[in-house]
Amino acid sequence: MEKVAVIGIGCTKMGEHWEKSLRDLSTEAGALALKDAGLSGKDIDALFIGNMSAGRFTGQEHVGALAVDQAGLTPIPATRCEAACASGSLAFRKAYLSILSGHHKIVLVGGAEKMTDLKSTGSVATLMGAGDQEWESSIGLTFTGLYALMARAYMRKYGLTREELSLVPVKNHKHAINNPYAQFNFEITVEDVMKSPLIADPLRLLDCSPITDGAAAVILASEDVAKDFENAVWIAGSGQASDTLALHGREDVCRIRAAEKAAKMAYQQAGVGPDDIDIAEVHDCFSIAEIIAYEDLGFAERGKGKDLLVNKETTIGGKIPVNTDGGLKVGHPVGATGIKQIIEVVKQLRGEASNQVKDAKIGLTHNVGGSGATAIVHILKKELD
Amino acid sequence: MEKVAVIGIGCTKMGEHWEKSLRDLSTEAGALALKDAGLSGKDIDALFIGNMSAGRFTGQEHVGALAVDQAGLTPIPATRCEAACASGSLAFRKAYLSILSGHHKIVLVGGAEKMTDLKSTGSVATLMGAGDQEWESSIGLTFTGLYALMARAYMRKYGLTREELSLVPVKNHKHAINNPYAQFNFEITVEDVMKSPLIADPLRLLDCSPITDGAAAVILASEDVAKDFENAVWIAGSGQASDTLALHGREDVCRIRAAEKAAKMAYQQAGVGPDDIDIAEVHDCFSIAEIIAYEDLGFAERGKGKDLLVNKETTIGGKIPVNTDGGLKVGHPVGATGIKQIIEVVKQLRGEASNQVKDAKIGLTHNVGGSGATAIVHILKKELD
Repeated sequence: MEKVAVIGIGCTKMGEHWEKSLRDLSTEAGALALKDAGLSGKDIDALFIGNMSAGRFTGQEHVGALAVDQAGLTPIPATRCEAACASGSLAFRKAYLSILSGHHKIVLVGGAEKMTDLKSTGSVATLMGAGDQEWESSIGLTFTGLYALMARAYMRKYGLTREELSLVPVKNHKHAINNPYAQFNFEITVEDVMKSPLIADPLRLLDCSPITDGAAAVILASEDVAKDFENAVWIAGSGQASDTLALHGREDVCRIRAAEKAAKMAYQQAGVGPDDIDIAEVHDCFSIAEIIAYEDLGFAERGKGKDLLVNKETTIGGKIPVNTDGGLKVGHPVGATGIKQIIEVVKQLRGEASNQVKDAKIGLTHNVGGSGATAIVHILKKELD
Repeated sequence: MEKVAVIGIGCTKMGEHWEKSLRDLSTEAGALALKDAGLSGKDIDALFIGNMSAGRFTGQEHVGALAVDQAGLTPIPATRCEAACASGSLAFRKAYLSILSGHHKIVLVGGAEKMTDLKSTGSVATLMGAGDQEWESSIGLTFTGLYALMARAYMRKYGLTREELSLVPVKNHKHAINNPYAQFNFEITVEDVMKSPLIADPLRLLDCSPITDGAAAVILASEDVAKDFENAVWIAGSGQASDTLALHGREDVCRIRAAEKAAKMAYQQAGVGPDDIDIAEVHDCFSIAEIIAYEDLGFAERGKGKDLLVNKETTIGGKIPVNTDGGLKVGHPVGATGIKQIIEVVKQLRGEASNQVKDAKIGLTHNVGGSGATAIVHILKKELD
């Protein structure tokens, strides 16, 4: 199988961009990625974009056409991919496959979401489009509610304490301080988390990823093109899997089986295991999600995820630093998040990260859609085998 | 490049399915496609689904996960593709590329839209998500309005009469009579069209494709699998291109440049030209669109598209029958339409169509998103070269 590499990266600041629209954000990220690669729009064969719900957030569907038009890249083909919060990784994976297919050589892959054009209650309802509309949204469940159910079940099953759960956002806020793109870059303490408003018991405000406007983009290239790029970071493995859309369909809500399977696929293709990963970006939409991710990815045994936090193994300087840019606490512009994760891993492997992990050679991204109905895992390597 | 074939097809009835939801429709079409191929769900490696706007029509995003879960096909990966009214063809093309990539062997590709859960005014506003939200929808333009502008410009430039324009729906209604899936199967006359209510001058009710619930699905397989299927129909060419999202960005609104380019790509890959096509399914969302399609696809010279209608060349029995199943007048469940087109071409090449074209060997589908910001063309062949 041919090799494909990331040869350019670009990211907007995460936040409330009242003065920018979806098209402005996606174009800004794309232009930054082109600049980073030293390419012009003329070099691009196709565009892919991950976006969850522009139709509901802004009234705009046909998001691929919007992005390609605004970027001045017509007539190249444009594809929008959607898998809720995993839309960015889905676009990345489809772009990767499109290069492997032989139809494209150089592809621009972005992710974008403009969430603040709706009131926050509208945003919360829109985000529940990622869950099961007939069985979950319709009875009033919110996403925080779904992850609260998972957190409660996990705490009961494995004896996780509320204080231990708080170590996730404390770590990620700490990691975000040096991140110039972060929506929030201030440190918090366990006490801050415990005192923050209760959203859905046991989850509190500081457990939750924010509502964010933002976009991120990368450029992928086939081996014959990428080999001339000194900064190229290679895709070593790609995995994607599905599970029931509604949480009630799962045997065990303390794990995300789609993530386990996607990780297995990616590890297998890359020829590596959990112990080989130097840095990982995982989908910490709510604090509990990061602990479950550790276990789904094989970084810790079932029920032992918290030990990595307590022992600071996933903090910068630890054995396997996780969410070195601050994770989703940096901002969670839904469709862009998967691409933002890829960008942080690429930066780490290039040696350009704001919280650089020494000698990082292999990185992993873990992006989850909804409460786990979709999961996509990618493994990137600095050196081509 | 490896060859890929369609080995199974399935389609729901087009219409107002008050008793069925998006998940029911997509599962019904998928099950029919599996049955047609003689396969079970266990044989499927991945699912792709085209859907334009389930978020706005029904509150449900994460449409890939919905479809794969409801079909009992978890944990295989599921991908939703969106390019407005071309979402079905987009999913088809991405599924095709995913097989060429070597990652999958047998893929289920569906398209589905549940449009009647909204009131019709809501549906019309939702459909304008395919246009430019900032520059078109926001000032009150509808899709009929956009195509009315194109029709008016075309009539002025090329002297097309209102009566000649009516020949499109007259032909397509005639073709739909034998189609068991048609939402409407009654014949109409030029006079009926002229007397039907004015929607956006010069377009009248009988010029418009309907609001439709429906789903369609096909199964794609790699060459080593498909060669054992007697009924296999091969993908010979695939083209996709983009143009400005808003109509005002185009130099000439009497043609769709994205369709011209997509057709050129598909012809080139297939090694055929317009004269080789035995049957075509084109995107007649409004009557004018079919005449423009003739010219974009090279079936007629610029301004001469109407001659094919006047001389009955695109009617069954003519030189190049177009929309032999009734086209979009059969029903236009937006995300499903591109797959429905593929199904009609496959039926024609198998020799199983309700309006069978004698000795049809090469067929074409032409699927347009919005007012032409996306166009996707596929060419299918009965025999593998």
